[in-house]
Amino acid sequence: MNWESIDALAKQWVKEAGEKIRSSFDKTLNIQTKTNPNDLVTNIDKEIEQFFISKIRGVYPNHKIMGEEGFGDEFTSHEGIVWLIDPIDGTMNFIHQQRNFAISLGVYENGIGKIGLVYDVVHDELYHAIRGRGAYMNGMPLPQLNETTVKEAIIALNATWVMENKRIDHNLMIPLARDARGTRSYGTAALEMVFVATGRIDAYISLRLAPWDVSGGSVIVEELGGVVTNLRGRKLDYLGQDSLLVAKPGLHQTILRDYLKEGKW
Amino acid sequence: MNWESIDALAKQWVKEAGEKIRSSFDKTLNIQTKTNPNDLVTNIDKEIEQFFISKIRGVYPNHKIMGEEGFGDEFTSHEGIVWLIDPIDGTMNFIHQQRNFAISLGVYENGIGKIGLVYDVVHDELYHAIRGRGAYMNGMPLPQLNETTVKEAIIALNATWVMENKRIDHNLMIPLARDARGTRSYGTAALEMVFVATGRIDAYISLRLAPWDVSGGSVIVEELGGVVTNLRGRKLDYLGQDSLLVAKPGLHQTILRDYLKEGKW
Repeated sequence: MNWESIDALAKQWVKEAGEKIRSSFDKTLNIQTKTNPNDLVTNIDKEIEQFFISKIRGVYPNHKIMGEEGFGDEFTSHEGIVWLIDPIDGTMNFIHQQRNFAISLGVYENGIGKIGLVYDVVHDELYHAIRGRGAYMNGMPLPQLNETTVKEAIIALNATWVMENKRIDHNLMIPLARDARGTRSYGTAALEMVFVATGRIDAYISLRLAPWDVSGGSVIVEELGGVVTNLRGRKLDYLGQDSLLVAKPGLHQTILRDYLKEGKW
Repeated sequence: MNWESIDALAKQWVKEAGEKIRSSFDKTLNIQTKTNPNDLVTNIDKEIEQFFISKIRGVYPNHKIMGEEGFGDEFTSHEGIVWLIDPIDGTMNFIHQQRNFAISLGVYENGIGKIGLVYDVVHDELYHAIRGRGAYMNGMPLPQLNETTVKEAIIALNATWVMENKRIDHNLMIPLARDARGTRSYGTAALEMVFVATGRIDAYISLRLAPWDVSGGSVIVEELGGVVTNLRGRKLDYLGQDSLLVAKPGLHQTILRDYLKEGKW
C-alpha cells in the first residue's frame, strides 16, 4: 500500500474541507440535535462528510468509510482499509465560538492506525503523522514526549467526570483532579489529543467518545511516544463508543495504577 | 480627565509588551513558585510588569498602580486613578502552552472602571473598551450581548469547583454544571471574561481571583450589557481576592437566583 500517496491526498482534502468550513462562517447555520439535546449537528458537518466520502470513493472505491454523520458504511469489523472521519470535532464549539473545533481523519489497516490528521481549521494548524515516520505540525517535526508526573501535569477532563455520573465512580477521578497541577476542558477530543502530542497538556480523559473522535489523534500521539487506551488500560477497538485515557509516557501508567486502579472497577 | 489619550497610550504599551512576550518564547524561562506550588511566576511576568510601571510613571506620576507581581503601590482604597495590571494572566498556560494567556489592564477612577484592555498575545487579538463608548476587538465594534438560558449556555468553570472545596458548597455548583449545555475551562480569567464578551461562552465562574485578573475584562463585559459580580451577587471592590460570576444578561440573574440562592450561604 502506498501510504505516502494516500497521505498526500488526505492532506489536500482536509485543507480543502477547512476552506469550505471557513467560508461557511458568513452563512446561516442550520442546527439540529441528535440523540440528546446537547448533541448538535449542522448542515456543514453533513456537507463536509459527504465531501470526504465523494473524494475517497472517487480514488479508492475499495476502501471503507466510517463517518460521524452516518453517510459511510456499516461496520462489524475493521478488516481492510478504513477511513474514520469526523468532519467537525467539537460541533458545539463550532456553533458557539467559530473556533476550537477540528477536522479529524484516520486511515486504518485491519484496525491498526496508519495515518492520522487533525486540522485546527481556524488557526490553520495541521497535525499529522504516518505510523513509523514521525508526527508533524504544519510540516515541522514534533519532538518525542517526555515523562512527567501528576503533580506537574495539566490534565484535560470535563467537570462532569468529577461529579456523580453513570460511566465511572467519580471518587476515582476526584483525587486525580486534585493532585494535578491544573485541569482544563476545551470541548474537542481531536484537539485535546493533539494538545497532548504537542505537550500543551499532559493527559486527556474522556468517558464517552466514538471511533471517529479519536482515530486521527491516536496515530499522532502514539507516534510521539504517548500512550492511548481506554480508562481500564485496554486498547481501543475503534468499532464502538469507549472511554479514553491519553497521556505522556510514565504519566499514563501512574494514572492507570494509582488513580484508576488498573481498571478493576 | 482625557480618557482617550490614556487609552491610546495603554493600547500602545500593551502591544509593545505583547511583542516583548512573543520574543521571549525563544529564551529560557526562569520559573518560580509563589504562595502555593501551582502558583507560578516567571522572569517575564516580572519584566512586563516593570515595563508598564516605568511607562505609566513616566507620563502619569500621580496615578497609582496595582500589579500582580507587587512592584506597584500599597492600597487601602481606590481613590484617584488606579491602573490594575496583570502582565501575564494565565501564567501556567504561558509556561506549558505558550498560548492561552493574556495581558490584562484596567484603569479605574475612584473604584469605577473607565478603560479595560485584554490582549491575547499569541493570536494578536486586542479586546478593549472605554466606559460608555463601546467595546472592540482589534478595533471592530463588538455587539451587545443577548439574553440566554442555562440550558443553552456554555459555562466556563474549573472542575475543582464541583468537587468538595473550602470556598463554596459544591452541591450548589453541581446542578449548574449538569444543566448547562456544556462546561469548559481555559485557565485564564482575563480571556474567559472576554470570551463572555464575544459570546463564545455564556458565563464564567471562579472562586478565587485577584483585582488585576478581572479589572480589564469587567469594563469590556459590562460595556456590552454583561453582568459582573461576585458569587453572592455583590459588586466587586477591586481591593482584595473575591469570587466571580460573569454572565450574559438574564443568565446572570438565573444563575444567582436558581443555583446560588441569592448568595444566602
